[in-house]
Amino acid sequence: MSAAKSIDISVIEAEMATLGSNARSAAHVLATTTADARRIAIESVADSLAAGYDKIHVANAQDMADARAAKLNAAMLDRLVLDAGRVETMVVGMREVAALNDPLGRVLGEWTRPNGLRIERVSIPIGVIGIIYESRPNVTADAGVLCLMSGNAAILRCGSESFRTSGAIADCLRRGLQAAGLPVNCIQLVPTRERAAVGMLLSMDEDVDIIVPRGGRSLIERVKEDSRIPVLAHLDGICHVYVHAAADVDKARCVTLNAKMRRTGICGAMETLLVDRAALDMLPKILASLHEAGCEVRGDSEVCGIDNQAVAASQVDWDTEYLDAIISVGIVDGLEAAIAHINRHGSHHTDAIISEDHAAAERFLNQVDSAIVVHNASTQFADGGEFGMGAEIGISNGKLHARGPVGVEQLTTYKYKVHGNGQVRP
Amino acid sequence: MSAAKSIDISVIEAEMATLGSNARSAAHVLATTTADARRIAIESVADSLAAGYDKIHVANAQDMADARAAKLNAAMLDRLVLDAGRVETMVVGMREVAALNDPLGRVLGEWTRPNGLRIERVSIPIGVIGIIYESRPNVTADAGVLCLMSGNAAILRCGSESFRTSGAIADCLRRGLQAAGLPVNCIQLVPTRERAAVGMLLSMDEDVDIIVPRGGRSLIERVKEDSRIPVLAHLDGICHVYVHAAADVDKARCVTLNAKMRRTGICGAMETLLVDRAALDMLPKILASLHEAGCEVRGDSEVCGIDNQAVAASQVDWDTEYLDAIISVGIVDGLEAAIAHINRHGSHHTDAIISEDHAAAERFLNQVDSAIVVHNASTQFADGGEFGMGAEIGISNGKLHARGPVGVEQLTTYKYKVHGNGQVRP
Repeated sequence: MSAAKSIDISVIEAEMATLGSNARSAAHVLATTTADARRIAIESVADSLAAGYDKIHVANAQDMADARAAKLNAAMLDRLVLDAGRVETMVVGMREVAALNDPLGRVLGEWTRPNGLRIERVSIPIGVIGIIYESRPNVTADAGVLCLMSGNAAILRCGSESFRTSGAIADCLRRGLQAAGLPVNCIQLVPTRERAAVGMLLSMDEDVDIIVPRGGRSLIERVKEDSRIPVLAHLDGICHVYVHAAADVDKARCVTLNAKMRRTGICGAMETLLVDRAALDMLPKILASLHEAGCEVRGDSEVCGIDNQAVAASQVDWDTEYLDAIISVGIVDGLEAAIAHINRHGSHHTDAIISEDHAAAERFLNQVDSAIVVHNASTQFADGGEFGMGAEIGISNGKLHARGPVGVEQLTTYKYKVHGNGQVRP
Repeated sequence: MSAAKSIDISVIEAEMATLGSNARSAAHVLATTTADARRIAIESVADSLAAGYDKIHVANAQDMADARAAKLNAAMLDRLVLDAGRVETMVVGMREVAALNDPLGRVLGEWTRPNGLRIERVSIPIGVIGIIYESRPNVTADAGVLCLMSGNAAILRCGSESFRTSGAIADCLRRGLQAAGLPVNCIQLVPTRERAAVGMLLSMDEDVDIIVPRGGRSLIERVKEDSRIPVLAHLDGICHVYVHAAADVDKARCVTLNAKMRRTGICGAMETLLVDRAALDMLPKILASLHEAGCEVRGDSEVCGIDNQAVAASQVDWDTEYLDAIISVGIVDGLEAAIAHINRHGSHHTDAIISEDHAAAERFLNQVDSAIVVHNASTQFADGGEFGMGAEIGISNGKLHARGPVGVEQLTTYKYKVHGNGQVRP
């Protein structure tokens, strides 16, 4: 048993090492492609995906049968299923990525030194990106194509429940790459369901430059904990809306309702509402809309005193991402107190102020230490598409490299090109 | 004994935790300062350093006495000693940093969405920067002031041999901060020589946003290995010069000599010379200059056949950063072979091509996967000052966030400011 297990592991290790060196080689080829070549490849990949629907459907039916047998819940089954409509959506999304501005070869800066050296800072691909995701098999296509457009090789590790579906999608993508004359190893799927492969991927710091986990909190926590490679992700989206003394009550009500209830399960959904003591008269109207929409209100003692439908919030509520129709509501004494609460309890993701006082709003935007700070609009705009950046591979609340939505531009780095005519340093 | 030890550790843990929360508080204040306020503070800090020379001198004399008693070698003693001239150099360097362009509040992008949302991407400080360095006590001042100009709070961990000197410098800096009305905790020195404090600093991922190690390979290796916080650094500078078939022989000779011998101990010094087989006739002239300058040549078998002063290189030479008057020299078959060698054996730091063929040079610059790629100039220009960026805190060969020289601009991140008038997401 133990011997058999160790053989399996060494086989997987060898497979993963091959995956890594294949990816690095493909990345070197990709780094020198033109935007046109990458766009043509994406169109080819999209065509191949559309043409491959039958095989994807068969694979998905098998995954679904296993998932039902394993008694996965309805939400998980819904994430897993791929019908013709969803595949069509993936194809359309791919073509949109092909239409984005080329993120590579942008001259980010250029100057000439007194000694005649001309220095250019130019955007280039990061190299090899490892994407680790859970049940939604469409990530295989979406992430693969975002990496392709940004000139990066992708190593995709799907959830075990979508293993066959993701495999069928990856096959289509690779056929499309081949037809376009690019290395098929620009996009590779980890060829095993074994969990050990994840740990191996996270330790391949020679061949993988960045890890992007997509999924629930436990996945992202594990990846952040175990990775020897930099991780772009956010663990939590504990987003706030702060209703300032000078708020317009209707904006406060509409934005709050949208920020909480439009979709409760996304990372940009508001989890905590802070209302300024000087705006306390707006609270009943705001809470009435939330109650009417079916939202549970957990308030501090003052809020519970005002709203008899509210239940008492405990200390842990201020640090909780509900991802559900639940909201914590607190009263704060002024702008500084709101900012202090958010910087202490938030997750540096997306936070909003509602106010007609532009100076107060500017102070909030400057002092709240979050990737996205919003004045008089819903936190649910925290999204690459809504930002006009095209598709996103995720959102980062880290401070290094990329903050906020991570699109093709954020999947690049830069190099300095120094042009001389024989200069030596004195 | 064991009980005493555990008490010490818990005391240090408490001190480090206080340092962290002090730094975070100071960073929040710093983030909202104007460039003028930071410039005035730097001038005040510089004045305070100049005025404090006597105390620094006394502290340095004590450190030097201990260092001599501990039989530190001459190079280490030279790094440790601070005379009036060196302090004056530090003061001048500070005033130069104060004169840099403000790296904060730069609008990196600004656009308006069809729904009227106006989105700005604005540069902001990273937050809290931990700097871990070895014997040179001037880093205390240089790094502290670079952090200050970029709006970051600094936690400085000096080498134990410069503990008193660094402490005296830090006292000056803090007096200068106080005189300028900024929190003294913008710059803090770890108040113990205990090595355990380094491990604690590297685990304070809540309060420290980035770690910059400055020193030898073993320090940087340990920091990269142990840190839970992202690290900006380079482990090696295995830099190459490639003499292409179409090289100008005099440029090749001069650049090679400068790249190797100007200063052998800096990270931008060339370690390996690659000569194209088609440029073999240039080799004797190039090697003659190196020999004349006292450089040991370790060649592959062909090089040794041509140059009877060369010794045979072993496999490990191609992966070695000598930081000394030694060079490995190899013959390569064409541009692609040179690029492949550099991408395999290099450290993604700085690599140069010597060629009059601009198309070949452009291919080299595009395909060599290094932070800095150079055409017809010395690798020793790999330096923030030489790039015109002002002082640098170090050089990064990582791909994320900052590549190449890390100056005040690279010590920033960004946030998105979203300006609305009540927009909700459909």
